[in-house]
Amino acid sequence: MNNNKPELYTSFSPSLLNLYDISQSIVVIIDVLRATSTIATALYNGAAAVIPVDSVSRCIEISKQIQGITAGERDGKIAEGLEYGNSPFEYPRNFIEGKTLVLTTTNGTKLLHMALDRGARQVVTGSFPNLDAVCNYLLQQQLPVLLGCAAWKDRVNIEDLLFAGAVINKIKDRFTINCDSSQVAAAMYTTAKDDLYGFMEAKQASHYLRLSNYGLEKDIRYCLTPNLAPVLPFYKDGKLILL
Amino acid sequence: MNNNKPELYTSFSPSLLNLYDISQSIVVIIDVLRATSTIATALYNGAAAVIPVDSVSRCIEISKQIQGITAGERDGKIAEGLEYGNSPFEYPRNFIEGKTLVLTTTNGTKLLHMALDRGARQVVTGSFPNLDAVCNYLLQQQLPVLLGCAAWKDRVNIEDLLFAGAVINKIKDRFTINCDSSQVAAAMYTTAKDDLYGFMEAKQASHYLRLSNYGLEKDIRYCLTPNLAPVLPFYKDGKLILL
Repeated sequence: MNNNKPELYTSFSPSLLNLYDISQSIVVIIDVLRATSTIATALYNGAAAVIPVDSVSRCIEISKQIQGITAGERDGKIAEGLEYGNSPFEYPRNFIEGKTLVLTTTNGTKLLHMALDRGARQVVTGSFPNLDAVCNYLLQQQLPVLLGCAAWKDRVNIEDLLFAGAVINKIKDRFTINCDSSQVAAAMYTTAKDDLYGFMEAKQASHYLRLSNYGLEKDIRYCLTPNLAPVLPFYKDGKLILL
Repeated sequence: MNNNKPELYTSFSPSLLNLYDISQSIVVIIDVLRATSTIATALYNGAAAVIPVDSVSRCIEISKQIQGITAGERDGKIAEGLEYGNSPFEYPRNFIEGKTLVLTTTNGTKLLHMALDRGARQVVTGSFPNLDAVCNYLLQQQLPVLLGCAAWKDRVNIEDLLFAGAVINKIKDRFTINCDSSQVAAAMYTTAKDDLYGFMEAKQASHYLRLSNYGLEKDIRYCLTPNLAPVLPFYKDGKLILL
């Protein structure tokens, strides 16, 4: 059935990525709170590029070489030794325009490197602030898709599933979806879509609680709002850039 | 919050089990289609024990030693060399009473052995046919709980999530649940509970399709019906038995 449509799969955790052959796929890295929301925002606000790196030491080293801005978090807080954190509000146009952000985060940058190591055909990043840009790109390319949730230290989280579900609900007619994870994500999003923030709060989403405890409700609300940063971060030659 | 209540977590796939410390926990092995439904049914119908083994050769070997019945599937069909399959309807009382079933399946028995290897405090099996028996036991023990979905070759499946959600909805007030997977499972079950079969069909659940193609709709309907085999299979000394 649907034999002419490319396949779409969803991976709920980096620990599950190895179950999927991604060599022909566009992999969408999803780390809603907050890495991929911040990446879209920085690029939308004119950043030259975002370089995702997987360690704090490498973040500092690369930043020195290219005179970039060190940024990132560990466990939801600015990592020691870095200048900036992982909040989209730290990167307004009047600060970030023309600059390169070197970013390291707990989950999102790790998954991105896993996808590269496993030979992904293309890697882009997705979040509610760039929801439609992601969907439009996937519709236009008509290649197999793997929606990759960054999760939290490999444990499934609600917000990445909700974003995967939002994408699936928008593009499912053009893809073959024989994947229960995708069905679960889409059903969750359908249940939650009228009030994503309220849903996260009601479900006491673990990451919602973690960030709420740091006083980051404003970040959470932004990261759950569609299309405030309508661009497509695309990985090329070590950097996330706009095509 | 809820500091006196034991914790409850849900693991969506054997690949995620290692994220949880289960040394103090009751682990509920969930393989709705069909291993744990069949285990509950065989014991309810008077089987002396079910011995879960992880390979066909070991199934045959042990069965010879104890004059048991070899049973099991690979990829949803009776495995070559075994006498019986993985359908609950193969084990009515007039056949199974007093006998020992030696069972090997694609996912459920594998997860059970993983839980044992990782030092689970107790191992029981859960499925809709013994839903209330599982819930009552967990409520009575008041120990930490890990709901372990067997999934399909490590890929998340809908039916095991639905059962986890059914358990959570029944016992959540007595447990501390700081686990997004549990919240997802509970929300899914709430959405689906009025018509589990229809939900599986509408979502084109991968395992529903696989078994439907083998003409096993009757099995699926049975395996989604609560409390037809109201017993608690408990793992002790290499066997699943009734306490």
